[in-house]
Amino acid sequence: MRVGVLTGGGDCPGLNAVIRSVVRKGVDAYGFDFVGVRDGWLGLLRDVVLPLDIARVRGILPRGGTILGSSRTNPLTHEDGLRRVQDTLAAHDVDALVVIGGEDTLGVATELSRRGIPLVGVPKTIDNDVSGTDYTFGFDTAVGIATEAIDRLHTTAESHMRALVVEVMGRHSGWIALHAGVAGGGNVILVPERPFDIDEVCEQVKNRFRINYAPIVVVAEGAAPKEGQVVLKDRSRDEFGHVRLSGVGEWLAREISERTGKDARTTVLGHVQRGGTPSAFDRWLATRFGLHAIDAVKDGDFGVMVALQGTRIVRVPLAEATASIKLVDPSLYEEFEVFFG
Amino acid sequence: MRVGVLTGGGDCPGLNAVIRSVVRKGVDAYGFDFVGVRDGWLGLLRDVVLPLDIARVRGILPRGGTILGSSRTNPLTHEDGLRRVQDTLAAHDVDALVVIGGEDTLGVATELSRRGIPLVGVPKTIDNDVSGTDYTFGFDTAVGIATEAIDRLHTTAESHMRALVVEVMGRHSGWIALHAGVAGGGNVILVPERPFDIDEVCEQVKNRFRINYAPIVVVAEGAAPKEGQVVLKDRSRDEFGHVRLSGVGEWLAREISERTGKDARTTVLGHVQRGGTPSAFDRWLATRFGLHAIDAVKDGDFGVMVALQGTRIVRVPLAEATASIKLVDPSLYEEFEVFFG
Amino acid sequence: MRVGVLTGGGDCPGLNAVIRSVVRKGVDAYGFDFVGVRDGWLGLLRDVVLPLDIARVRGILPRGGTILGSSRTNPLTHEDGLRRVQDTLAAHDVDALVVIGGEDTLGVATELSRRGIPLVGVPKTIDNDVSGTDYTFGFDTAVGIATEAIDRLHTTAESHMRALVVEVMGRHSGWIALHAGVAGGGNVILVPERPFDIDEVCEQVKNRFRINYAPIVVVAEGAAPKEGQVVLKDRSRDEFGHVRLSGVGEWLAREISERTGKDARTTVLGHVQRGGTPSAFDRWLATRFGLHAIDAVKDGDFGVMVALQGTRIVRVPLAEATASIKLVDPSLYEEFEVFFG
Amino acid sequence: MRVGVLTGGGDCPGLNAVIRSVVRKGVDAYGFDFVGVRDGWLGLLRDVVLPLDIARVRGILPRGGTILGSSRTNPLTHEDGLRRVQDTLAAHDVDALVVIGGEDTLGVATELSRRGIPLVGVPKTIDNDVSGTDYTFGFDTAVGIATEAIDRLHTTAESHMRALVVEVMGRHSGWIALHAGVAGGGNVILVPERPFDIDEVCEQVKNRFRINYAPIVVVAEGAAPKEGQVVLKDRSRDEFGHVRLSGVGEWLAREISERTGKDARTTVLGHVQRGGTPSAFDRWLATRFGLHAIDAVKDGDFGVMVALQGTRIVRVPLAEATASIKLVDPSLYEEFEVFFG
Repeated sequence: MRVGVLTGGGDCPGLNAVIRSVVRKGVDAYGFDFVGVRDGWLGLLRDVVLPLDIARVRGILPRGGTILGSSRTNPLTHEDGLRRVQDTLAAHDVDALVVIGGEDTLGVATELSRRGIPLVGVPKTIDNDVSGTDYTFGFDTAVGIATEAIDRLHTTAESHMRALVVEVMGRHSGWIALHAGVAGGGNVILVPERPFDIDEVCEQVKNRFRINYAPIVVVAEGAAPKEGQVVLKDRSRDEFGHVRLSGVGEWLAREISERTGKDARTTVLGHVQRGGTPSAFDRWLATRFGLHAIDAVKDGDFGVMVALQGTRIVRVPLAEATASIKLVDPSLYEEFEVFFG
Repeated sequence: MRVGVLTGGGDCPGLNAVIRSVVRKGVDAYGFDFVGVRDGWLGLLRDVVLPLDIARVRGILPRGGTILGSSRTNPLTHEDGLRRVQDTLAAHDVDALVVIGGEDTLGVATELSRRGIPLVGVPKTIDNDVSGTDYTFGFDTAVGIATEAIDRLHTTAESHMRALVVEVMGRHSGWIALHAGVAGGGNVILVPERPFDIDEVCEQVKNRFRINYAPIVVVAEGAAPKEGQVVLKDRSRDEFGHVRLSGVGEWLAREISERTGKDARTTVLGHVQRGGTPSAFDRWLATRFGLHAIDAVKDGDFGVMVALQGTRIVRVPLAEATASIKLVDPSLYEEFEVFFG
Repeated sequence: MRVGVLTGGGDCPGLNAVIRSVVRKGVDAYGFDFVGVRDGWLGLLRDVVLPLDIARVRGILPRGGTILGSSRTNPLTHEDGLRRVQDTLAAHDVDALVVIGGEDTLGVATELSRRGIPLVGVPKTIDNDVSGTDYTFGFDTAVGIATEAIDRLHTTAESHMRALVVEVMGRHSGWIALHAGVAGGGNVILVPERPFDIDEVCEQVKNRFRINYAPIVVVAEGAAPKEGQVVLKDRSRDEFGHVRLSGVGEWLAREISERTGKDARTTVLGHVQRGGTPSAFDRWLATRFGLHAIDAVKDGDFGVMVALQGTRIVRVPLAEATASIKLVDPSLYEEFEVFFG
Repeated sequence: MRVGVLTGGGDCPGLNAVIRSVVRKGVDAYGFDFVGVRDGWLGLLRDVVLPLDIARVRGILPRGGTILGSSRTNPLTHEDGLRRVQDTLAAHDVDALVVIGGEDTLGVATELSRRGIPLVGVPKTIDNDVSGTDYTFGFDTAVGIATEAIDRLHTTAESHMRALVVEVMGRHSGWIALHAGVAGGGNVILVPERPFDIDEVCEQVKNRFRINYAPIVVVAEGAAPKEGQVVLKDRSRDEFGHVRLSGVGEWLAREISERTGKDARTTVLGHVQRGGTPSAFDRWLATRFGLHAIDAVKDGDFGVMVALQGTRIVRVPLAEATASIKLVDPSLYEEFEVFFG
């Protein structure tokens, strides 16, 4: 049996750990052959594949990024996309695919599976917003980096008695903001799931200053104020019709500064959250995902995605997992309200 | 209502995070008063308590150790122990206790609860071997530190083509060894749950050298060879009757060196695994445990322990949680066999 | 003898280590008394001082920020500023000052010393641009944080084959950019001391892509293109008449993207570079600076600044040290040219 | 011109950074060819060399260990050693050598240089005890790891009010112990240069406990008590005739425990101090050493070692640098006495 492996979407710590364990178990336990597909779906569109064996995956467990490259290409928006994918798979005698990706990549996988391509999905996103799994790898690393940054910013905020706004990743969901905000001792945590009230935020900031404490505001890049609280030129609407601010961190610091009369600064953590070596947790999870994904291939159990539920790895139907993204539950957010304001 | 808080057993990253969230929510949401018990059960035996309020818990979230101090004292082995505990609680008008501890501390809590003391348990152990909960805080930090150490040892092993034995914590269970061994790319992982065969270990080590790769052996301090494989002077038996080696890492390096003719060295990670700032994961878990523990106190739901199941915090009966320790399941261990040898 | 201690300017890892060693040696070896001045020169203008003794400095060695607070206030621009400073010192019987600060704070110290106030300076800046000393504390920590960020960004850049621009601190000097750029394996390093040629930068970026390598551009916030290479609306001039760009990182990413046709992104590291626990190097240097500063006070050797020369701590006249800032020497920059482009 | 590169002795973070910069500048600036010698002097004895070019050194800057392998082989103790070294060099048309190593490796280099082999030395040791240079690369990384470990141990020591003994590397010199001890806030620092008085150590430990503070003792592996303070069976003498204890950390914890009646534990940091990615400081220093070493080759300036003096890289005669090791100066040690006891 010959198995193709591809990684799609934004890069994420742990991708290499998955590739390694898929190949290690596939070769050693099942005697499979492997090919690596270059740059996600693009490699299948353009027929760019590379040899993949045990020697090639040696030493990659602790390395960030992906040795296969990645892209955001969607083959189904290309004319003849499906056929070209099928042709590439046929040309290289690929019997099954392991597809490692997030919402978009797995959405394509769901569709291709429906059209008969035998594949198994592995959920990947630092944002943690894939449904059907408790966690995705990359998330723990991102939260760790963001938390360490918040730790560092606390000392600066306190030395100068200023408010600090930390903008973290999370376009559609606030998982990183909530976890890093709680772990870093943030006083205000703003997530896309809950449009915020800028007056209330400023009130919380003032409360902190009143007890002689420099406030830390942790905001997901996709968080936005309630309708009517932002002037037209700053806003746009995303694909779900939600108000979006480009540079919500900057906007917040400006508003806080103007409305409270206190110094406020922003740090946008950006891409450092998604690079570098994966945390131990993410290596563990990514390794297990890879082992279970190749088991599913062995079992001929296609159209599924491996997922973490509690401490067990299970298989869930791809169609179910990609039907909607996983948002922060209001009751979880509210658990932490005692720390806010 | 006045609530006492105590921390018992070995120290563990996240203890302060629990104390902080218990007090923050207890005061702000429920209007409780608090006292801190000094040095675990010892403080109740000797009547040493300290005031505990919001000012006292400020800034402690990222700090390792415990501001309350700890000890391994068991009040039930002292004459009049129960009465002295009751007297101290009465003297300070303590209506309920939050007891943060591992197997031993929670075992005492179970017994005291049976005898009528209103208390709620919070599981704590870097070893992750408390039953009823998927994870305990401190474990993720310990695994992270051990994994980082293994990463560092890899480069030394490779530069000198020698075998490296890394001894990690885990007297009765192999959770740290298994997680850090998998995350660190160890080639042999030895846990207390599975007596090992020293011949097989040496075979695996030789296999690695044969493909020009320096082997890393990760061993839990409580792991031991099969009966008959260790000479009498090196061994003892623990309270469960298992063979125990003092210095299993040293013993392994010596045996590997003698039996394979290759250079082998040991590193014993020791106490660095249990100190210092908690990881983001552990701060999140410890904070949630604290919030839910004080909720249980508020509900008058005593004799329970808070626990993580999946992504939810639940309450489990203390008697159930402390009936036996949680061991590494053989099927979990076997998931990783493709990486061994 | 009673000694006042103040910290001025931006916060910097190691400030607390200096305060601790000044007080520890002052009390234990010389029997001095101490007062802490709140928020830099502001505390002397407004008469806000706090008690400072050995208990107060316990445990602060590893903590970022400054327990004394800081500000950028210049007392000499306030009417009666000198007199108010003198009055505060007299009111608290302060016989000498230890002034810990950067260019601005030490510039004021130089002037106050000229006017008869007995003081000793300790150079502090993460930018490393104080003259007369090989290094300042805080710099090593900042370079370490920036280098770790660049390490992380490498894997993202490679996975997506895009150019990454990393903007680091350094308004007037390129020390952080040069050190972190060299340590992080940057392919282009841009410093304020050398106006850059945007065409040349794009050429270097293209060279990297040509050999299948994702380029990393490290740029100091104060770096700017040659005259004429930036449209008027983007530029301003600083106090030295140099062209300055607000957001040079953003500008570079945009230009690179437009001129090379490749994807380019920016990360602005910002305040995380100046917060958090100091590196071991900075704790060592800050501790030694403190010990030698209080020795100078003991010797009555005022108007000097402690400085690192080689491995020795020496005293240099404040007037000399603050006459001009220390820039990156062209010959040092040119040492690394083989790595560029 | 063809240049050979070899790395000898214990591995050390930064070796790969030197190799990379030697090759990058040698090829790009001077058009040299390179060969890598496998496993230090052993490769020249046994004629094992490998091709070394720019592709081979790509991406190795942040990696610990050495891509060339290392050994402690001394060719001059082998019969015909010199001739075999010369034969290997001749067989591969090697015109000059860059020798990266510590005391032993550079000692051999000094002798070979005397006998006419054209070579340039690069000092390498995590112990920092090579004469003629302010610092060696690897040292800063080792001190950073040891300091982080001490930070972690503080919280454990405080939670349990016990003494902690941390044994760090340093067989002949106490540089790591002194730097990490000062940076980590150790209360007792023991170095090989100063035989210690066990009674005095216990007195200092008791002083700490008396003010309610858990003492941290940092001890170099080569430190030993004064003559007569250790029973015969625990001691040996090293090549300089100094008393040596195997396991000085263990011995100290036992003695402290017995003599003070307090709980005391040891952590032996071991090989983690020498592995893993180099610190930014070490990458900077190693990179500069490499660049200057190949410049010396270009200049035909053989028999020298590159060295750091202040912020400049200079060349010193190998014979001078290897005449004796660099010890901790008593006056430097005494700078910190106010923190002890």
